[in-house]
Amino acid sequence: MKFQELILKRQSVRKYIDKPIEEEKLMRCIEAARLAPSASNSQPWKFIVIDDPELKDKVARETFSTIVNFNKFVLQAPVIIAITLEKPPVINRIGGRIKKRSWKLIDLGIAAEHFCLQATEEGLGTCMLGWYNEKKIKELLDIPIKKDLTLLISLGHFNEDYKLRNKIRKPLEEMCSFNKY
Amino acid sequence: MKFQELILKRQSVRKYIDKPIEEEKLMRCIEAARLAPSASNSQPWKFIVIDDPELKDKVARETFSTIVNFNKFVLQAPVIIAITLEKPPVINRIGGRIKKRSWKLIDLGIAAEHFCLQATEEGLGTCMLGWYNEKKIKELLDIPIKKDLTLLISLGHFNEDYKLRNKIRKPLEEMCSFNKY
Repeated sequence: MKFQELILKRQSVRKYIDKPIEEEKLMRCIEAARLAPSASNSQPWKFIVIDDPELKDKVARETFSTIVNFNKFVLQAPVIIAITLEKPPVINRIGGRIKKRSWKLIDLGIAAEHFCLQATEEGLGTCMLGWYNEKKIKELLDIPIKKDLTLLISLGHFNEDYKLRNKIRKPLEEMCSFNKY
Repeated sequence: MKFQELILKRQSVRKYIDKPIEEEKLMRCIEAARLAPSASNSQPWKFIVIDDPELKDKVARETFSTIVNFNKFVLQAPVIIAITLEKPPVINRIGGRIKKRSWKLIDLGIAAEHFCLQATEEGLGTCMLGWYNEKKIKELLDIPIKKDLTLLISLGHFNEDYKLRNKIRKPLEEMCSFNKY
């Protein structure tokens, strides 16, 4: 599959069918994330796979919003991935401080997207989740209090009739310019 | 090409040959970035293509370090991409404030990696650069003072004998766990 085809196929999947994730597929997604590039190869991430059904349901419920009715679909996903931000090596932290810049969230985004693109190639659906009760999920997963739980990804199979949506994006002229802002 | 093959091929290329970038290849890389997913589809990025030789050289020189001898290779690249962080829509900023979380750097990382992976498929080499004189480059590109110039990417052709390096990464057990941190 051409990379552009993969990009067009990857979309947030918010409806999963009742089918477990094949271990080899899951591990290829993790491997894609493991191989992701990062600033000075710092790899500032940890991926926690939540596939224990009872625990997974508990985590899913902590992604629901009490304000608006969303994220309910997460309960259907057989697997949830929780990604924590890990401390980059000292050299990056010094460099980042000099330049007043932090690369670790950029790195984490790359690794998460590697995971999702590999899942797309495996025929699986994912949805990155930024809204959840961090405190509660950290308790459920024994994540140290000082760690930053940065992103969740739901993972599951979807029905053949799940619709591939067109990508609505800013036009090229708005997101790109030449030699001048 | 399988996605894993693409991942293994993508590496920081720090030596370029004297050959211009084909426009259609460049535009496919931009398109891959344009199609990247982001929190609530906010697309908080702008890509500035620097291909004017004189300007490009000036920008390249602002990536050099005076402390240690690095980034000199950037001068060989026929194109440099500068990526600025753009304000996400209000809804994301409110959500981010409630959750004390910012998704925009994650989003920018994803878009930048889409660019680099597409470049890899095109047979081009890239290197993400986090070290540069932000103030000077913003002046050179007329980037408004309040904007955050977050990342540069060098882009160029490389010689056939440029070596594909093995990826050195943390072992799986260190970056991944099941149902518990």
